[in-house]
Amino acid sequence: MKKLFIQEVAPRDGFQNEARFIETDDKIAFIDQLSQCGYAKIEVTSFTSPKAIPALKDAEAVMHQIRRNPDVVYTVLVPNLRGAERAMSCGVDEVNLVMSVSETHNLSNLRMSRERSFEQLAAVIGEVRNTSTAINVSLSTVFGCPMQGDVAQDDVLAWVDRFAQLGVDGVTLCDTTGMAYPTQAGNLFAAVLTRFPNLQVTAHFHNTRGMALANTVTALQAGVVRFDSSLGGLGGCPYAPGASGNVTTEDMVHMLELMGYDTGVNLEGILAISRTLVPLIGHDVNSQTLAAGTRMALHPVPEYVRQLQQTQ
Amino acid sequence: MKKLFIQEVAPRDGFQNEARFIETDDKIAFIDQLSQCGYAKIEVTSFTSPKAIPALKDAEAVMHQIRRNPDVVYTVLVPNLRGAERAMSCGVDEVNLVMSVSETHNLSNLRMSRERSFEQLAAVIGEVRNTSTAINVSLSTVFGCPMQGDVAQDDVLAWVDRFAQLGVDGVTLCDTTGMAYPTQAGNLFAAVLTRFPNLQVTAHFHNTRGMALANTVTALQAGVVRFDSSLGGLGGCPYAPGASGNVTTEDMVHMLELMGYDTGVNLEGILAISRTLVPLIGHDVNSQTLAAGTRMALHPVPEYVRQLQQTQ
Repeated sequence: MKKLFIQEVAPRDGFQNEARFIETDDKIAFIDQLSQCGYAKIEVTSFTSPKAIPALKDAEAVMHQIRRNPDVVYTVLVPNLRGAERAMSCGVDEVNLVMSVSETHNLSNLRMSRERSFEQLAAVIGEVRNTSTAINVSLSTVFGCPMQGDVAQDDVLAWVDRFAQLGVDGVTLCDTTGMAYPTQAGNLFAAVLTRFPNLQVTAHFHNTRGMALANTVTALQAGVVRFDSSLGGLGGCPYAPGASGNVTTEDMVHMLELMGYDTGVNLEGILAISRTLVPLIGHDVNSQTLAAGTRMALHPVPEYVRQLQQTQ
Repeated sequence: MKKLFIQEVAPRDGFQNEARFIETDDKIAFIDQLSQCGYAKIEVTSFTSPKAIPALKDAEAVMHQIRRNPDVVYTVLVPNLRGAERAMSCGVDEVNLVMSVSETHNLSNLRMSRERSFEQLAAVIGEVRNTSTAINVSLSTVFGCPMQGDVAQDDVLAWVDRFAQLGVDGVTLCDTTGMAYPTQAGNLFAAVLTRFPNLQVTAHFHNTRGMALANTVTALQAGVVRFDSSLGGLGGCPYAPGASGNVTTEDMVHMLELMGYDTGVNLEGILAISRTLVPLIGHDVNSQTLAAGTRMALHPVPEYVRQLQQTQ
């Protein structure tokens, strides 16, 4: 059984997108439950400006109060040097830096050019590199930009290369608005894994157009072993209200385990946590496994069938 | 570009499951629109007892009044000899026969043993075989039974073999309740295609647990070229109310075209038809491509980004 690494992003990527503020204690309880379920990594929060993202204004409190499982890497999103300092003061295991490979998307999302983003992130990397804190870079829109369209594979490789040369530990290729498709995803991950064998490469798919699990299959075939996902599919698609966002952890783990992979994740455990999301966030979640049950959650044989069985 | 054959099941598999009766004229108009969109096959209706399935009680009227496109195979579901006679009197191109490879599911769904089903279907095949009407057999629950659980691949192969020996033209392997997973689907289709190279083999996936497009990828890799699907994902999962049913045609075609396959289907055309479904059936449909837009339906660059672009 090939070992995979499942990385839960709901506490950051999910809660950040909720209209209702999730109380700090509820966040902590949620993350503490996740910590018992066999994830390789949990993205806990974001050390951004509380004014920019009030949903995660309690980053320090959450990071300090969760009960950390030594088998889990606790990562946090960090936009700049100030965020990195706040994060490191909380003893995070990893900082996760973000920029977009699309100039238009970077301007739209971060309100600066890619070069300016790179400078800022390089400064963070320079500060963190010689500490025990790991560094991951999440590259947005690598499978396509919702405003610019296609993104060339060579551009993605060039950006990965720039960060690899700065000595980061890992790179996440993000399908920010669900534009990845299976052949493209397989080809890009194969190219990145071949060229950067020492990087930890994560696939971060969105299910916006229903292809997240199909992309997961070709990413697996390309050799990817690290996958981001979000419990209940929390975390929306900013360009299409009502469309699906992050791939749903329980649907992904359900599929991967059926395929014979060792995800490490306790599926029944995360389904139980996923069931608590609706009261917590106040709206439906996107969980087909929760709606339909797992594959082998069988249905009782109806009485009329039992009678027919006896008369055969 | 490899040519695929897309087979639309919404008029039968979809409308059969709607609580609201779809008026005969509306059915005909819907099918006439589909006929212009490049499908290889359309499952028009079912020649079952009007008492058993009142939703399709107008089978003759629909079959007689649609405007047939000579490039489309018009198939109909037929349960028995009486149904076959009714279907042939309407000049259908193909009859589609159904039984389940799970004894419990066959008893539950058809209220008879598999052997009795096989006898009935063999009688139909005997009548139809020497006519110009083609014969397809749809085998239910080949990827798992919602009551019995796993189904052995050898059992599936044995049932395909029995029908192949009767001289049928095609066999559809149906994931009736969404229990298929990618490695299993790839393996089963590879086995069937290898052993029965002269059969037309169709994949019929349900998206109950989100895996339909992932299964489509491995079925493609195994060599499958024929796929059933349902516009708007019409056609439910009888064992899990609210869960997804048939794989959605527009989501599947969207993915397949991005992957470089020639589906023959006009995606914009079927999206336009899919948009008419909600008023027709009176409830939401399951169409991620309709909700999010196609991959390259780009979004305008916001004004603040344009200003930032000018100041770079």
